[in-house]
Amino acid sequence: MNELDFIAALRSLATDPAARGLADDAAVLELGGETLVLTHDAMVEGRHWLPGQDMADVAWKLVAVNLSDLAAKGAEPLGVLIGHTLGDGDARFLEGLHEVLEEYRVPLLGGDTVAGDGARTLGCTAIGRATHQPVPSRAGARPGDWVWVAGTLGAAMLGFEALRDGSGADSSAFRRPVPLLAEGRALAPHVTSMMDVSDGLLLDAARIAAASGVTLSLDTASMTVADPARMIDCLTWGDDYALLFTGDPALVPPVAAMRVGKVESAGEHPLLLDGAPPAPGLRLGYRHG
Amino acid sequence: MNELDFIAALRSLATDPAARGLADDAAVLELGGETLVLTHDAMVEGRHWLPGQDMADVAWKLVAVNLSDLAAKGAEPLGVLIGHTLGDGDARFLEGLHEVLEEYRVPLLGGDTVAGDGARTLGCTAIGRATHQPVPSRAGARPGDWVWVAGTLGAAMLGFEALRDGSGADSSAFRRPVPLLAEGRALAPHVTSMMDVSDGLLLDAARIAAASGVTLSLDTASMTVADPARMIDCLTWGDDYALLFTGDPALVPPVAAMRVGKVESAGEHPLLLDGAPPAPGLRLGYRHG
Repeated sequence: MNELDFIAALRSLATDPAARGLADDAAVLELGGETLVLTHDAMVEGRHWLPGQDMADVAWKLVAVNLSDLAAKGAEPLGVLIGHTLGDGDARFLEGLHEVLEEYRVPLLGGDTVAGDGARTLGCTAIGRATHQPVPSRAGARPGDWVWVAGTLGAAMLGFEALRDGSGADSSAFRRPVPLLAEGRALAPHVTSMMDVSDGLLLDAARIAAASGVTLSLDTASMTVADPARMIDCLTWGDDYALLFTGDPALVPPVAAMRVGKVESAGEHPLLLDGAPPAPGLRLGYRHG
Repeated sequence: MNELDFIAALRSLATDPAARGLADDAAVLELGGETLVLTHDAMVEGRHWLPGQDMADVAWKLVAVNLSDLAAKGAEPLGVLIGHTLGDGDARFLEGLHEVLEEYRVPLLGGDTVAGDGARTLGCTAIGRATHQPVPSRAGARPGDWVWVAGTLGAAMLGFEALRDGSGADSSAFRRPVPLLAEGRALAPHVTSMMDVSDGLLLDAARIAAASGVTLSLDTASMTVADPARMIDCLTWGDDYALLFTGDPALVPPVAAMRVGKVESAGEHPLLLDGAPPAPGLRLGYRHG
């Protein structure tokens, strides 16, 4: 089954309104006066990491991408559970896991390990506590808001290429993404919508537009990206784990951020780039399936 | 790396006292006046299910075994997150998932789907709310307690054999295990220790003995199993998802249960079977790795 069809079918099973967490958004759950945020991301060998890549980096990334989902909800992590398939590099995996848990002071709550063969699948579930109500979602951008990005765009792509080509250039943005937890918590009280840029700015902006029922009009002239000569690549490659958010024009973001566009009433296209719809056939970002 | 070594190394990373959930026990987390219970179990094609098995049954079991972990904590489920690798039988997987979620009224909170090749790995994280404090654990059995089992022993083995051999005999205990959620909640206020029997009664009894610092002395004459002619197989095959618990001699269990032994002060062996240590070389249950 095609992944998008599968996800659509999964969503139809999720009759509970809390079930917003399918495929890439985190779930929000009210409990005993607290608001929990839950997310689960899986990574597959050869697809989400290069064969032979240092498993310490893979462990880091496995946890970091889940923490990034918490960051976009302004949540502080309570812990993670790891689903691990045994294989080459397990000792390095443990070292990287130790490093990322230490770095973000996240308890390892549990998990499961299995023996497998073929391409390994790793999973991570992160649970966090929302620090602000309402919890930021994709569905809150209003016409007149400005669109902002905190974090870098395109650096993960350059890091991937450096690693793949063995060029010796810095590959850390791909190998060890930094979840913007403090930034997410600082922003949560001020934004009208927020998500992390996991699949490319253009695709994720289109998702906010769809969820909010608006059009996002982005302006490349206002963007700083890792490689300006490859602007569109930097906006569509993904894996950056920046925070994309919208806010009232009066908002002065409490963290470093660049203004990348504005929110307009829903038009014919959910996304405008420099005033025009993206070229037909342009791949907006990393699509599942 | 050997799975037991990996799990031991993982445990050493888990400096947080809440990190009891590695490999097979659920994690317990206090938050906002509530006590959360979290568990993650993974299943691998060809290892946890037969190639060609109906994926609706696999989906059921994936969720049910996690709910069983919640049951052993006396917790009521709040939801599950699914990590799914796409492949043959996805439509049936969705049907089985729908059935198990409906049956136990568990919301699907989120998850992730990935494309993969080779043996598929599926993961499930379940989160629940403890209904009783203290939350039952493995470490509470006291000398003088009696040892009890609620649920069947050996039926999953017979079900597996029926399915494998195409004998036409009932295979539902293997395909569609029943998490004893109501039983776990009813028992939680009364037990001194509790866990679910996922890996075989003897191995799981040894785990309670180790965690509690006692010896469990089991008596086969008092046990009803699915195939009395194969008593030891029924006690070591696993996959039954019964509840194993200990309680004060005055305890009258509020659910159907059989008394299978007593707790003694720690002796030379953590486990006695009909008064003697298990035969050297006897495989006590399904061991990971």
